Amino acid sequence: MADFLNTDFLLDSRTANALFHDYASIMPIIDYHCHIDPSEIYLNRRYNDLAEIWLGGDHYKWRLMRANGVGEDLITGCGPGWEKFKAFADVLPRAPGNPVYHWAHLELQRYFGYEKPLNPGTAREIWDYCNDRLAGDEGLRVRGIIERSKVEAIVTTDDPADSLEWHSKLASDETFKTRVLPGWRPFLAMDIESAGFPSYIEKLGDASGICIGDYSCLQEAMLRRMRFFKEHGCCSCDHGIRRIVFSPVSEAHVNEIFIRRLRGEILTNEEAEQYRYAMLTFCAKEYARLGWVMQLHLGAVRDVNTIMYDRLGPDSGFDCADSGSGLQGTAGFLNALEQDGSLPKTIIFSIDPADSQAINSLAGCFTQEGVKGKVQQGSAWWFNDTFTGIKKQITTYAETGALGCFLGMLTDSRCFLSYARHEYFRRILCSILGGWADRGLYSSDVECLGGLVQDICYNNVKKFFNF
Amino acid sequence: MADFLNTDFLLDSRTANALFHDYASIMPIIDYHCHIDPSEIYLNRRYNDLAEIWLGGDHYKWRLMRANGVGEDLITGCGPGWEKFKAFADVLPRAPGNPVYHWAHLELQRYFGYEKPLNPGTAREIWDYCNDRLAGDEGLRVRGIIERSKVEAIVTTDDPADSLEWHSKLASDETFKTRVLPGWRPFLAMDIESAGFPSYIEKLGDASGICIGDYSCLQEAMLRRMRFFKEHGCCSCDHGIRRIVFSPVSEAHVNEIFIRRLRGEILTNEEAEQYRYAMLTFCAKEYARLGWVMQLHLGAVRDVNTIMYDRLGPDSGFDCADSGSGLQGTAGFLNALEQDGSLPKTIIFSIDPADSQAINSLAGCFTQEGVKGKVQQGSAWWFNDTFTGIKKQITTYAETGALGCFLGMLTDSRCFLSYARHEYFRRILCSILGGWADRGLYSSDVECLGGLVQDICYNNVKKFFNF
Amino acid sequence: MADFLNTDFLLDSRTANALFHDYASIMPIIDYHCHIDPSEIYLNRRYNDLAEIWLGGDHYKWRLMRANGVGEDLITGCGPGWEKFKAFADVLPRAPGNPVYHWAHLELQRYFGYEKPLNPGTAREIWDYCNDRLAGDEGLRVRGIIERSKVEAIVTTDDPADSLEWHSKLASDETFKTRVLPGWRPFLAMDIESAGFPSYIEKLGDASGICIGDYSCLQEAMLRRMRFFKEHGCCSCDHGIRRIVFSPVSEAHVNEIFIRRLRGEILTNEEAEQYRYAMLTFCAKEYARLGWVMQLHLGAVRDVNTIMYDRLGPDSGFDCADSGSGLQGTAGFLNALEQDGSLPKTIIFSIDPADSQAINSLAGCFTQEGVKGKVQQGSAWWFNDTFTGIKKQITTYAETGALGCFLGMLTDSRCFLSYARHEYFRRILCSILGGWADRGLYSSDVECLGGLVQDICYNNVKKFFNF
Repeated sequence: MADFLNTDFLLDSRTANALFHDYASIMPIIDYHCHIDPSEIYLNRRYNDLAEIWLGGDHYKWRLMRANGVGEDLITGCGPGWEKFKAFADVLPRAPGNPVYHWAHLELQRYFGYEKPLNPGTAREIWDYCNDRLAGDEGLRVRGIIERSKVEAIVTTDDPADSLEWHSKLASDETFKTRVLPGWRPFLAMDIESAGFPSYIEKLGDASGICIGDYSCLQEAMLRRMRFFKEHGCCSCDHGIRRIVFSPVSEAHVNEIFIRRLRGEILTNEEAEQYRYAMLTFCAKEYARLGWVMQLHLGAVRDVNTIMYDRLGPDSGFDCADSGSGLQGTAGFLNALEQDGSLPKTIIFSIDPADSQAINSLAGCFTQEGVKGKVQQGSAWWFNDTFTGIKKQITTYAETGALGCFLGMLTDSRCFLSYARHEYFRRILCSILGGWADRGLYSSDVECLGGLVQDICYNNVKKFFNF
Repeated sequence: MADFLNTDFLLDSRTANALFHDYASIMPIIDYHCHIDPSEIYLNRRYNDLAEIWLGGDHYKWRLMRANGVGEDLITGCGPGWEKFKAFADVLPRAPGNPVYHWAHLELQRYFGYEKPLNPGTAREIWDYCNDRLAGDEGLRVRGIIERSKVEAIVTTDDPADSLEWHSKLASDETFKTRVLPGWRPFLAMDIESAGFPSYIEKLGDASGICIGDYSCLQEAMLRRMRFFKEHGCCSCDHGIRRIVFSPVSEAHVNEIFIRRLRGEILTNEEAEQYRYAMLTFCAKEYARLGWVMQLHLGAVRDVNTIMYDRLGPDSGFDCADSGSGLQGTAGFLNALEQDGSLPKTIIFSIDPADSQAINSLAGCFTQEGVKGKVQQGSAWWFNDTFTGIKKQITTYAETGALGCFLGMLTDSRCFLSYARHEYFRRILCSILGGWADRGLYSSDVECLGGLVQDICYNNVKKFFNF
Repeated sequence: MADFLNTDFLLDSRTANALFHDYASIMPIIDYHCHIDPSEIYLNRRYNDLAEIWLGGDHYKWRLMRANGVGEDLITGCGPGWEKFKAFADVLPRAPGNPVYHWAHLELQRYFGYEKPLNPGTAREIWDYCNDRLAGDEGLRVRGIIERSKVEAIVTTDDPADSLEWHSKLASDETFKTRVLPGWRPFLAMDIESAGFPSYIEKLGDASGICIGDYSCLQEAMLRRMRFFKEHGCCSCDHGIRRIVFSPVSEAHVNEIFIRRLRGEILTNEEAEQYRYAMLTFCAKEYARLGWVMQLHLGAVRDVNTIMYDRLGPDSGFDCADSGSGLQGTAGFLNALEQDGSLPKTIIFSIDPADSQAINSLAGCFTQEGVKGKVQQGSAWWFNDTFTGIKKQITTYAETGALGCFLGMLTDSRCFLSYARHEYFRRILCSILGGWADRGLYSSDVECLGGLVQDICYNNVKKFFNF
């Protein structure tokens, strides 16, 4: 029986072991997509207790607790930290297989040096031990965590109207070496059906110094903000879209839709799709010009439980995966950009695991001389970010594409301890490749595989994003 | 090489072995969804031969035989028992991997104590041996089988118009300890497009003592029958639906649709969906009031071969799985109930394995303080009820949810020997969890895992249904 | 660590080993679906170099190279052979898991007797060594390759207007034993939306000696060509269809659609579907009369990249997989044929791996006394033709059907070295079945499994197609 989460965790063959320890583990991290708050880096936040660093903002843990019937006061409510943590400790041992089980224990070991499993019997000891560490150890403040994790660069996700104030401050702080770059995420500018859309457009207008009265003003405002982001080092953008519906219409038509919406009118679903498609296309063309990498996060169905949305707002753990929605629109979109000569480098993530092979086969249809993996599938995302999900994504990418071009892992997280997920991913990657070599499915050229592993862990993303 | 189906069958690690033999195997069975005929329990049916107990009513076996070109006379026809059995024996060795292969041999071993594999060479010996046992062994009559299998409770599936006569008789028979409860399954009341719908409504009217002339009468009749079922201990209901189409309309509109249909009119597909959605919603709200567990069996496409349907009727092995139909309607349905404060405990089964992750992610959006796994994915169903399908379902549940809340196995069967499927499921469950512990993916706390296994095998379902 | 691609390649258990070496490897090959050019067999083509035999026409390799940023001149362009080969050698080691990696090395070993892995360091040596062999070894000309591979019969894919000249010549060449039969593939006659459709119909008219002015002429022309193909030994036909849309309409309506299209009118998508459905149904009924096997290749989305299509034409590596399109139309189509008493033997391939279980469950609804596996799922196709894809397809077929009826492998290839894919498939098949036996999931009756393996490798297809 293997020790729980020991140094050979997930490394079930000799070559896997060599690949991880000699090649993967020594590489720095570039976390090219996450949701952390840059002010917490600048201010070098210190956490009061384990509940704060672990349970504040982590909807994965919230969902586990809710599924077990824990009340909302001990989840997002104002229950005491210890009680929240205790409720989590009751729940965790009952979630074998859930990535939270692995992540939580990896984080305890790697950042706190605590080795026993978390359960009702150890909860108090862990609470006291870790809180002491949080209070006294500089390495457990935000900057310490980032540095210990060898994070070379971080890309956040930011609204076009954001002032990027904290990014500026971080850029001019010479005491901190990790680059913290903004990531362009025009979610609200796309979300024309939401009640808050007109007022968001006003806010965007203020940020860009343009009074946005029609679609061409909107375009101009977006262009100005992209330039502003570019000046702050932005090289990446992200679109969270349930499904791309291929619906090109004339700019005049989009303008009319936009103006009617600004006036407070309710749009048909078709009109909303036409606006979103136009806006997405407009943005993508500009991304190509700017040399930005376009990330498409497809298939999330947001805010499925209206009562809880009204109570807690978005990103609280009430989203789910779409299934069977297909990729026809995405195919049409990429082809239209290619025909226009303005297809940016693109990473496609889908929440539907059944899409994985289709994504890879679609990605392989759009390539560019001199660019490795110009359009490619992103790492296992959200509900797929599990042991099986990661294994499947890597295997599918390998079997229907050229794995050596893969951009590898990102945390997509709101929590600074999540860099442990890079380790988790790297171990699975090495386990797959090592297993292939040891079963005669790949030549026994460990050095070549090792180089490939290092490319996937670090080199590819550095080159792809021009970091 | 492991012995065929020996005591360590499927238990490929030390911990798996301990989990099964020390924890899982000793738990009783609650078979919370099946299609057996309660009269056969009350009358303690004795089977004349192996063909009768094995081949009568089992469309899994029929499909295997048909795929091999066996004629219908030896399947559902009036061919002699021995010849039917012989044909099955010819076919079975040619179906490695098919669950029937495992189930049949498990049943031979566990109920008849016969250890050799069934094939053309052993067919005669098995036929004679087992028929002798069926004739002489009380433990091979229906009640004997149930008692030997440690079945504590059985939930059947019954039409709202059913008299529940046999359930009553069983309830007052003190010589038989296993509880046999009715399960509410208003399939025919939902099936507004079928030719027999108007006459079914008449039958339902008779059963409830109401002349059903409009939709409000129908609702009243349904309420009365639900009360009647409740009096007979019903705590569970089931809807087999190809796809939930979110289509709320006014009650007046539903009433008009219903009345037109009673008059013999043909409805549009849209109207039928509106009726079904209204009826499903009406029922679900009542289930919440009654504290019943709602089971949703999604994605089966019934009676795909019209010629064979006309010849043999439903449930004869001519159904198939839908693919790619999505869960948007289900999401809208659950959310509408939640908003109304009347979402019952719900188990979602889908025949489409590609839906599995989406179901789990959707289920996790609807929770209730104090209830473990209020909405959750059901066990691997029908075409998924295989070695790989069970493994996948458990893994997906674990990775996207809280496995400790899982309600575990049910036979869904028409045959009393099928309790062996609980053993099959439990072995796979223990193999997965034991494997995780032995590979360092879970702490080596066998006792904790053992408790979790027992919860999944028995405790959770007992509590969830209030047995 | 296993030697790379050694004799036990993929055979990870004792029984797997026995099954492959004692049963599978000795069987001949019937390659019942491929895209090779029969003239190259008749003329016994000799290849000038490794680039010609390996890189000319293989879009799997092209895609790998493009994904790595190789320029089109070294792919389909007129770059020198050595440079193309060198570019491929650079790319291959960076594609672990990709089937091209396994296929290429299997081909090097089996046909050239070269054992080292291909990489930048060995590229020159391999280039020189293999080119020498190609120049001097009769066994590396087309006929030699076929004979060494023990290929007993080959079915090509041919247009209805084809003269079948080379098939005739091959049939009367007594020096060559392998049967090379035409396969009927009316892709262009179905493709009513393409710009070239009217002129194709003219060509078809010329070939059949009918001036095709309306739909009934078209039917008559098709019938004549089918008879012609039948005279040349055809017993198989193939339809590549993105999705079967069940849309029966009157023959008069189809005729009107057809005539309008011949006049150059643009059809609605609905009209095109109606035509395609009518034509497909017409063909299928005739296939049933002729005793032909109908192959349905579903789910490919062709020519996704318009710019590259305009530059290179079809089948150049710019197709992708559909996802989530469902099988309702296919179900309705099969049922309609069955009701008409004219359902031919049918093999369903789908490019969407999420469809696999649905296909098997659908296939099992259509059976015929005396025919094993009358409707069945075909081998893992295209993007599924990988280690994992093959494993999944076999497992799904086994778990939801009767594996003993399976028709096994086909190359679907344009390259004569691809017979190595049969070996790849057979090894995986034996690995699965051997593993089941060794883990106690199947009785230890190796002889029975061995017979089943031989049926899947050869006997079943021979009988099914009446070779």
